[in-house]
Parts: sequence; C-alpha cells; structure tokens
Amino acid sequence: MQLNRTLSSLFALTLLSSATTFAANAVSETSSKPKNIVFVIGDGMGPAYTTAYRYYKDDPNTDEIESTIFDRLLVGMARTSPAKISGYVTDSAASATALSAGVKTYNGAIGVDEHKQPVTTLLEKAKSIGKSIGVAVTSQVNHATPASFLAHNENRRNYEQIAEDYLDSDADVILGGGQRYFSDDLIKQFEQKGYQYLNQFEQLETVQTGKVLGLFADVQLPWVLDNPKGKQLSKMTDKALSLLSQNDKGFVLVVEGSIIDWAGHGNDIATAMAEMDEFANTLATIERFIGTHPDTLMVVTADHDTGGLTVGANDKKSWNPAILHKLNASPQTIVSTFTAQEKWQDTLVQKLGFKPSVEEWKTLTAAKNEKDSKLTRAIINLVNKRSNTGWTSDDHTAVDVQVFATGPASELFNGSQDNTEISKKLDSLLPHSSSNIMKK
Amino acid sequence: MQLNRTLSSLFALTLLSSATTFAANAVSETSSKPKNIVFVIGDGMGPAYTTAYRYYKDDPNTDEIESTIFDRLLVGMARTSPAKISGYVTDSAASATALSAGVKTYNGAIGVDEHKQPVTTLLEKAKSIGKSIGVAVTSQVNHATPASFLAHNENRRNYEQIAEDYLDSDADVILGGGQRYFSDDLIKQFEQKGYQYLNQFEQLETVQTGKVLGLFADVQLPWVLDNPKGKQLSKMTDKALSLLSQNDKGFVLVVEGSIIDWAGHGNDIATAMAEMDEFANTLATIERFIGTHPDTLMVVTADHDTGGLTVGANDKKSWNPAILHKLNASPQTIVSTFTAQEKWQDTLVQKLGFKPSVEEWKTLTAAKNEKDSKLTRAIINLVNKRSNTGWTSDDHTAVDVQVFATGPASELFNGSQDNTEISKKLDSLLPHSSSNIMKK
Repeated sequence: MQLNRTLSSLFALTLLSSATTFAANAVSETSSKPKNIVFVIGDGMGPAYTTAYRYYKDDPNTDEIESTIFDRLLVGMARTSPAKISGYVTDSAASATALSAGVKTYNGAIGVDEHKQPVTTLLEKAKSIGKSIGVAVTSQVNHATPASFLAHNENRRNYEQIAEDYLDSDADVILGGGQRYFSDDLIKQFEQKGYQYLNQFEQLETVQTGKVLGLFADVQLPWVLDNPKGKQLSKMTDKALSLLSQNDKGFVLVVEGSIIDWAGHGNDIATAMAEMDEFANTLATIERFIGTHPDTLMVVTADHDTGGLTVGANDKKSWNPAILHKLNASPQTIVSTFTAQEKWQDTLVQKLGFKPSVEEWKTLTAAKNEKDSKLTRAIINLVNKRSNTGWTSDDHTAVDVQVFATGPASELFNGSQDNTEISKKLDSLLPHSSSNIMKK
Repeated sequence: MQLNRTLSSLFALTLLSSATTFAANAVSETSSKPKNIVFVIGDGMGPAYTTAYRYYKDDPNTDEIESTIFDRLLVGMARTSPAKISGYVTDSAASATALSAGVKTYNGAIGVDEHKQPVTTLLEKAKSIGKSIGVAVTSQVNHATPASFLAHNENRRNYEQIAEDYLDSDADVILGGGQRYFSDDLIKQFEQKGYQYLNQFEQLETVQTGKVLGLFADVQLPWVLDNPKGKQLSKMTDKALSLLSQNDKGFVLVVEGSIIDWAGHGNDIATAMAEMDEFANTLATIERFIGTHPDTLMVVTADHDTGGLTVGANDKKSWNPAILHKLNASPQTIVSTFTAQEKWQDTLVQKLGFKPSVEEWKTLTAAKNEKDSKLTRAIINLVNKRSNTGWTSDDHTAVDVQVFATGPASELFNGSQDNTEISKKLDSLLPHSSSNIMKK
C-alpha cells in the first residue's frame, strides 16, 4: 500500500516532470537562436505607409477590410532618432548604422560612429563566424542602407569608395542597381575574387551557386509601377535565399525596399503604393522560405518615415485609393517617356488611366508649358488631391516606425525599442555572441 | 541505497513539480481575468503624437533621449476604419462604438449599429454583473467617446438626449465638463437617484464614497496649457479609481484625454503637447493604482489620428520642440484674454515666452487687424513654423493608432488588431463572458 502510494506519487510526479520538460522545450524553441536571419528594411516606410497600403489593397466589394502581411506580422515599434548632434530626424545612413551596428551616429555616417571610427556590423560579425551574407536592394547596392552593413565611410556620398569597400566585405550576394559606381576595373577585381558578375536581370535565373555581384541598373532599379511584372525585389530575395542557404552554417541577408523612400521624397502616392506592394510580396516570399526553413528569423522595420505621409488630408474625413490603381506608369516616367510628342494629352490620359477634368487640364497644360519637372509635380498633385493624400515635406520625419517579425526569437522584438536595440538583439542571436539574449 | 535513490529521485521530481506549479501559476496569473479594467483613450492621438511627446519631453542636456510611459507600455497597434459606408477615416463616435461594443458602425453613431439599433457596451455589461462603472474625461461628459459607452443615439450631436441617457446608465462616476447639456431638472433627477452633483473642481476632493456626477465646465475643461497646475484628468481619474474600487466585485472605468483631439483639429502643437503631458501623467496615476491593485488591467489606445500631425516638415530634417515649452498660455486663450488691450504686443510676448522676429510681427499684426481668429491661427502657424511641425488637415486621418497595456491579460493586446477586437478582448475578460479569452 505504502509502496503503491509511493509509486503512484512517482508516476504523477513523472507526468508533471514530463510536462515541465515539454514546457521548457517549448520556451527554448521559441527563444532559440535562429540559424538564418533575414533583416528587411522598408526605406521611408513610416506607419502611414502600411495603413495606406491596407486600404489601397482593400477589395471595395466586400464588407470587411482585408488584412495585410504587415497586420499579421506586427510585433512592435522602433524609435529612429540619430545621435543628438543631428537632431531628432534621422537620415538613412545614421539609421542604417544604428540598425547594422547598434550605435547612434550623425546623419550621413556609413558604418562609423560619431567620431568617424568604423563600427563592426551585423554582416561583418556573421561573416567572421562562417555564415554567408548578402544584400538585395532596389536602389544602387552602395546606397546608404546596404552600405552601412558592408562598408565604413564618413560620408554616404562617397559612392565609389563605398563600392571599393564592398570588395573587401567578402559578401556572398550583392544584388541591386548601381553600375555607374562600379568601374570596369573594380568589376574585374570582383571577378578575380570569384564573383559572377551580372548586369542583366534575366541572368539572375541562371545562377545556381557561388558568389554573385548583380547590378541591374545604372543607379536604382525601375519603379514597380513602370515594371509591374518585374517583381524584382522578390526575385532577387528568392535567389539570395537559395544561394545563401547552401551554407550549412547559415546566413544573414539584408533586404531593402529602397525606393519606397524615393517615392516618398517625391510625395508620389501611386508610385509609393506600387513599391509597397512588391515589398509586401517580398515579405511573403521570405515567409514561404521560413515555411521550409523554420530555423530562419525575419525581422522587418523601416529606417524612418519619408514625406510626412498622411492617409487623408485637406480637412476631409476621407481617403480614396481607387484612383491609384488606374495609373499604369509612374508620373516621372509618364513625363519623361510619354508626353514628348505633340498629342501628349492622349498618351497622358492613357497612362493615367482616367480623364482629367477641365480644371485639371488647365493646371496640367500650364505646367507642361513651363517645364517637364513641373508637369510631373502637377500629375503627382492631381493624384494626391483626388485620393486626398497628405504630405508635409519632401524630406524625412521622426515618427516611430513599426517592427514586424516571425520565426525563432521573434518575440524579442515585441513592444517599443530603439533602433539600436534591434541591432543588439540580432547580434545577441549570432552563435558567437557572448551577450545573453535580451529579454524585455 | 535503493531507498535513498528512490527518495532522491522523488526529491528531484518534487522540485521539478514545484517548478511546474510555479510556472503554471505564472502563466495563469498573467492570463487571468482582471477584477478591474481601466480603458484609456487618447482622442486623436495618432502615432506621431507619442513620438512628438518623447522629443518634447527630452532633456536636451543629456546624450540619451529619455523614454516615456508610452514607450514602456506599447504592445501593439489598432486599425480604426469605420463601417465601409463611411469610408476609411473614422470619427470619434464610430470608433468609440467599435471600442465600446465591438461593432463597426457609421460616423456619428453613438452606441448603435449600422441599422441604428442599440448595441450593448462594455460598461453596460460590467454594470449588469454588479461591477461599478465610470467615465472621466476632459470634454463634456456626453461627448462622442464617453457617450458611446453609456448611451445610444443615432447622432452624436443630440447632446441633451445623450445626457438623459446617462441617468438610465446608472454609472457610478461621471466626471468631466458639460454643464450646458444638463438641465436643472436633469441634475435634480440625478440627485434624486442618489448622485452627489459637483460643479466646482475643488469639490472633488471632498467626495469619499457614493455616486458622483461632476460637471466642471460649461463644455470642455480648460486646456492644460492654460491650467498647468490643474492636473484635472489625473485628479479625476484618481478620484474615480478610489470611488469605484470600493466595490468588491470590481469596476470598469473609461478615461479619455478628450481634447488632445481638439488641439489637433486646431493644428496647435503647443496645446496638444501640454494635453499629452497630463495624459501621460494620468497613465502614471493609473499605473500607481495597479501597483497596489495588481488585479487591474489598463489598456490605452486612440480612436484615430487628428490633423495629420508630422514630427518634422517643410523639406527639412528637423523638429525643434524647445519653443513649445516657452508658451505659458494656449494660442486660443492668448487671443481671447490677453490681446484685447492697446499694448497687445507686450502681453503677447509675455504669454508666448519669446519675441517674434520682424517678419513674424508683420504677419501677426496683419492678422490682428483682420480678426481674432486670424491672430490665433497666425500664432499657431508661427509656433508650427519655428518648431517645424507639419499638419495636413483640420480633420482626422486613417493611420493606425497604438495600443498600450499593463496588468493581467495585457498580452492579449499584442500585435495588430482591429479596434473592434480590442472591445471583444475586453469583453472576454468580464467574468460572465462565455467567450474564451482570445489568443492571437
């Protein structure tokens, strides 16, 4: 009887013990260090961009408003201010250095601190412990954001020097635009180091293994609105994932939707929403990769807001995105390519996808008679007015940005955090790291 | 030996078992239903408001930027669109009905659905199960947000009908402004029902128990900027907590920083930041209450953004809040009270706390010569320009708002959610609720 009771207690305790072990495993699984990290940055993508994108994608024929991938993956927000010497509003260089190396620095700084001293970046640390690393972006590859992960320079405008730094970075995959900044000699040096150099987007498909430098445009890649079937960011990301994942030690990949920001600087909502769509498509691509590679963490954020975008404006409680789906070319391209000939009004209507009103024609014609850039701005203004979109600047603003995450340890990014903390948390997930995984 | 081993195993298992029980308790404690709920709404407080507030409060003499209570309590964001018939941009009535009753409705609807049918609110449910309920706001107490928790009306503008509804609501504590909407006869009916009626803010201190209707202004309470030592929202909240917590069955209190929104409609950043400061102070008050009453959940959100506020504007990477601390009266009050006399320039300088430039004087004088409202606007514009603050509207915008939470079950509010989901989650925490606590 006594023995039975002891055995029965033991059995009960063993059950409890199993439960404990299971619970402990569950915790350790969700908090475990991922083998691979994909760090995704929507340049300029303040919180109004993801809100606008939801309503832009909404099916007006249903009662509900469909959720987006951003809604599904939101975990927190991030504060973006640079070192105090630069005030409260960051540029892409200071914020990318915060995200790459966990330090606050001055606006314009590429992978250097306030004293212009190089700081070790996430990609450099990953490389040093045998992981593969890469960048895939829609700007020139040596633009501020990717540059702050692969180079060190006191000034973001030193594009050629930054391009030369890339040779030393030993990055396995470098994809984007920027042929202009890579001399023939520099390309040759990359090839001598074993890189496959691609200058046509179609060549990307053919690469199956090895190191790649792919520069698919003189500067930035074409706007999504001008190349809707191109899906260039998601294709580059997909290829980068397939190349980098051949390393048994894992990889860290930085992906940037670079020119969301450029559309924001232009206050161009139609172009911005098309960029957002391919950015969302890219997140879905990475999520599918995580489906088959569950040891992969994806963290998504923005470096800052651009343009002071607001979803509604002009003293009216409305935002009308339907008009944005009508355009089949960016305002910039409409003007540079389609309004040179005499019957410019016909091609303009065709590209806009709608007929301007009499009043609108007056404004457009006056602008056309002045100069091309005025016509571009007039088209942008017209679309902003019809959609009731607001902007307050052609530059950045300081509003906090969002943080999205999925995969192992994604819970680390819950809540509000400084942008430098995102970097430190990612750093803590690298296997060499002596720092503990930070818990909020 | 065998016995020793058995005992030692038993001991180890008991330890594990204790650990399991401890862990289970911890989980159940954080997920358990709170006895009390404080639901706090910052009317119009889009994400740019909490960012601006951080930099407004920043000590410029330190290297770091001090965190705010918002940074500490952020858990997620909320989508605010109304029923589709009203487009994508909500008003305070539709969003408050979403927050109070979990239904999407048309702009203007107070506690009624799209078909103008009453919907049961969180406060009504709480009352029906024996909890105490209350509202403490800085607008008139029968303004859209509190009204959507205590009344049902097809139109938010029916203030007198809404005030009459309050009598039937049996709310235990009703604090704010709005004397204008409560007739002597209605006040008498409240008193006959056992309410203590207060019309002087100082009387609030004297109340120790029982039901209270406190109306401390004709319409809204004074701006914080005009009454900086008043701390009216935090004092009303503190008193509401002390009265409501006398009920052993617990309580649900709705607190609103109502006129953050009104400052936003006026595009008045100095007034908005002062309102934010007292709102933050109120959150700290509630947090202290939770310290001594850990069975209390606080959830904080906004109903929408107002004004399309941006932190930085005008094509410049800067935001300069120092100027906002100089004003010692709101632009509205400066004009209504201090610029009537001949030497208006002297009192203006005194109230602004700084001397306008020659150019600025030209603008101010021209406005003054036209009409008072122009002078108010000119002062607001001057402050916006000096601080480099952007606005795109005098109305609401659709950007997602933030969600902050602390206390038991606060983790339910993590991530992105529709505003109706916040209400449903709170509803699931009431003891009568048959619905399960929703887990994301």
